[in-house]
Amino acid sequence: MTPKEIQGLKGFRDFFPEEFALRQHVFTAWRRVGARYGFAEYDGPPLESLDLYTKKSGDEIVGQLYHFVDKGGRPVALRPEMTPTFARMIASRASALPKPIRWFSIPQLFRYERPQRGRLREHFQLNMDIVGETDPLADAEIIAAAIDALRELGLDHTHIVARISDRQLLSAILNANEIPAAEHAIVFGALDKLEKEGPEAIRVLLQKAGLDSETSTRLLSLESASVEDLRAQYSEVEGVRVAADRVSTVISYLEAGGFGEYVRFDGSLVRGLAYYTGTVFEIWERSGKLRAVCGGGRYDDLLGALGGVHLPALGFGMGDVVLCELLKDLDLVPTEARRVEDYLICVTEAERAPALELARALRERGRRVTYDLRFRAVGKQLKAANQAGAARAIILGPDELARGVASVRDMTSGEVSERTLESLRKGDHH
Amino acid sequence: MTPKEIQGLKGFRDFFPEEFALRQHVFTAWRRVGARYGFAEYDGPPLESLDLYTKKSGDEIVGQLYHFVDKGGRPVALRPEMTPTFARMIASRASALPKPIRWFSIPQLFRYERPQRGRLREHFQLNMDIVGETDPLADAEIIAAAIDALRELGLDHTHIVARISDRQLLSAILNANEIPAAEHAIVFGALDKLEKEGPEAIRVLLQKAGLDSETSTRLLSLESASVEDLRAQYSEVEGVRVAADRVSTVISYLEAGGFGEYVRFDGSLVRGLAYYTGTVFEIWERSGKLRAVCGGGRYDDLLGALGGVHLPALGFGMGDVVLCELLKDLDLVPTEARRVEDYLICVTEAERAPALELARALRERGRRVTYDLRFRAVGKQLKAANQAGAARAIILGPDELARGVASVRDMTSGEVSERTLESLRKGDHH
Repeated sequence: MTPKEIQGLKGFRDFFPEEFALRQHVFTAWRRVGARYGFAEYDGPPLESLDLYTKKSGDEIVGQLYHFVDKGGRPVALRPEMTPTFARMIASRASALPKPIRWFSIPQLFRYERPQRGRLREHFQLNMDIVGETDPLADAEIIAAAIDALRELGLDHTHIVARISDRQLLSAILNANEIPAAEHAIVFGALDKLEKEGPEAIRVLLQKAGLDSETSTRLLSLESASVEDLRAQYSEVEGVRVAADRVSTVISYLEAGGFGEYVRFDGSLVRGLAYYTGTVFEIWERSGKLRAVCGGGRYDDLLGALGGVHLPALGFGMGDVVLCELLKDLDLVPTEARRVEDYLICVTEAERAPALELARALRERGRRVTYDLRFRAVGKQLKAANQAGAARAIILGPDELARGVASVRDMTSGEVSERTLESLRKGDHH
Repeated sequence: MTPKEIQGLKGFRDFFPEEFALRQHVFTAWRRVGARYGFAEYDGPPLESLDLYTKKSGDEIVGQLYHFVDKGGRPVALRPEMTPTFARMIASRASALPKPIRWFSIPQLFRYERPQRGRLREHFQLNMDIVGETDPLADAEIIAAAIDALRELGLDHTHIVARISDRQLLSAILNANEIPAAEHAIVFGALDKLEKEGPEAIRVLLQKAGLDSETSTRLLSLESASVEDLRAQYSEVEGVRVAADRVSTVISYLEAGGFGEYVRFDGSLVRGLAYYTGTVFEIWERSGKLRAVCGGGRYDDLLGALGGVHLPALGFGMGDVVLCELLKDLDLVPTEARRVEDYLICVTEAERAPALELARALRERGRRVTYDLRFRAVGKQLKAANQAGAARAIILGPDELARGVASVRDMTSGEVSERTLESLRKGDHH
C-alpha cells in the first residue's frame, strides 16, 4: 500500500514501539552502569566539520562518510564516530575540567557502507572514556565498566569474554622475531582476522607475507599463550617484559574486582585502529559467531593530535546492533512493560467528565491511564481495554457514581470489586 | 587554546555534562507523561529522502533544509520535522496497528536557518500524535498531554496558558466578513503576528490588505472574544456554529479533566501551517516574552496526502530550546543529582584489591562508586572525594582490614564511624 517514493533509506532503521522498547532497555542499562562508575553523560552534534574526521583518519575515511557542502560553503559530515567530537569538547575545556575526566555518551553514528545484507548505515554506540590517567588501574576500570554494561543486560561469563592485550607487546614480539617494521601492518592485518577465520587461513596469509613456517607457528601460538609463557619465551626482550607487566597488572585488578571469569589474555589481539598506544581489548560472544560486541583501548597520543591537548586517554565503543542480535539469540529481550495500567470505561456519556477527573488524579500518581476517545458500548470498551493489555478496567456507571464508587475489574483474573472513587484517586488500599 | 579548525559548527550545541543533565531531565519528564497517557515511544532515521519533505511542504522548504545527494545518487535531507517520518511509518503498518494509535517521539530536528543571534540549527522536539479518531475527546486528550508535559517540569497555570481555537472557525468568520478567499492567507499571516506584535501593528497590516477599519476592529476583537460572543455575533453562520461547538466541547473536556486554569479560547489563533483542519492550539509563557513553547492541532487530511493512508490525526510539537530558556528563567532547573555516592580510599597500596572487590559489591547494589585511579596520599584522596561531591568516603587501611572493618566518613558532617566490610557489601544497617 505504501507508495514507493515514501520508503525510508536503505540501511536506516525505523524504531517502531517494539524495537524502540529494546533500544531504550539497552540505553537505560548503559546509563545505570555509567552512573555507578561515576561517569557523566555528554553529547555533541551529529553534524561536524569534515576536517574533524580527515584530521584523525586521513582522506581515505571520506569514502565512508555522509559528507556534503552546506549552504554556507562548509564541508561537513555526519559523525562516523564519537572520539573526534569528544576530543574537540575536551580540548575546549581542558584546563577547567578536573582530572581524571570520566565521561560517556550514546551517539548515533553514520557510515556510508557499501550496501550489503544486514549491513546498516547508522547505529548507536556507547562510548566511555577516561582522560588524564596513565595508571593501569584506569585500564582495568574501563574494561570493568564495559563488562558491566553487558552484565546489566543479563549476559554473564558463560556468554561473553573480554580478550585483553597490549599494543606494544605484539610490536615487541614482531621485532624479536626480526620481522621488518615495514611488514608489521600486514602481519597485524592477518592476525586481526584470526578469531574470525581460524589459524589455517591466517597461516596462509602469513606465509604470503614472507614469514617462514616456524615464525608463523610462533605467532599463531600467541592466541593460547599465557603472559608467563611470553615472559619466559622472550625473557631477553625489554619491550615484551614491560608490556607483559602492564597487561598482567590490568588483569590482576580485574580479577580483584571479581571479573576474573570474564577476561582472558590474548597476545594475538590487534584491534584495527592504528592510534592505540597500550592496552587493547575486545569483548566477544564466546562462540565467536558474531562480530565483537565491544572494543577499545588506550590512546595516549590521540587527544594531542586531534585537539592539541596532550592528555593520556582510554575508552571503548559498544554498538547496539551486534548486541541486540545477541540479546535476541539468548532470549534476553525483556517482555515490554505493560503500556496501560488503568483503562477507564463509561457506561453512559454522562460519566465522561468524572472519568476525565479520575484520569487526571490517577496520572498524578504516576499511573498509566487510557480510555476510549469516543463513546461506545461497554462491551466494546472492555474489549479495547483487553487489547491494550490493561491491568484493570475501572467502570463508571450512573448508579455507582451516585454512591461515589466504581467497579474495578482485574483484567487477568476477571474478578470485579467495588472501590470508592476517593480511594481510587488517592491510591489507598491498593 | 583550541585550534580554529576543530570548532563545532555554528548553530549546533555541545551538551557538556551540565547541559546534558538538563536535557535528560526534560526528556525523562516527557517520557513519564507519555507513559501515563498510554503513548508508545518510536523513532525514525534522522536522514530521509528529500521527497518526503517536498511532498508535504513544496519546494520552498528546500531552502531551509540540510540536503545533499548521497553516494548512491539519492537526494536526501536531515529531518526538519517528524511528521513526514511519522506518516511514512504509520502508512507502512496502517492496517496492522490497532486504532487509535497513540505514539510519541523525541527526535533531533535540523534546519538551515539564516545565521542569527541565538538561532539554532538543531533542536529536540517532543512529538505526540493520535491517529484514527475524530471525536473532540482526542483533541482534549492531546492538549492535556501537552500541558502535563510542562507541568511535569514544574510549570503551572501561573506560568503557562494554552490558547485554543479551530481552524475552520476563523475561515468561517472571514467568509462572514466577506473577505475574499484569495485574501485569507494574508489576513491569517497578519493575525498570526498579533500575540507577538500587538494590535496596533496588526491593524496597519490589515488595512494594507484592504480591510476597512470596522472589519479590522472586528477581527482584532477575536483575541478577547468568548465562544459565546462569537456564537451570538455570527448566529446566522453555519460554519461558525459548527466550529464553535467543537471548540467548546474540547475546552469543556479539558475543564472536566482539571485543566481549566491552563486553557483559554482565542479566536485569533492561526498557527502558521496550512495543513490544520480543525482544532489548533499553542502553549505560551503568560508574559508572551518568549516564542510559543508548544503548538499543534488536528490534521485530518495530511496522512492521506503524505502516505496514502486516509486516517484522521492530530498532534503537537514541543521544542527543547524555548522550554529550557523558560525553565532557567523560572529557576526550575534541578540541581544535578550527586554523581558519586561512595568514594573508596586506600591507606596503602595493599588495599587496592579489597577496594576493588568492595566497589564491585557496592555497584551491584546500584550505588555510584568511584576512587582514585592511582595511589596517592590519603589527604589527596579525601580532597578528590570532596571535589567529586561524594556523599561518603570509605577508608580502607591495613589495621581495619585485618579486623574486617572500614572507616566511613560522612562528607557533609565530617562524622567518622566504623562499619564491617560485610555490612557495607550487603547494605545492612544503612
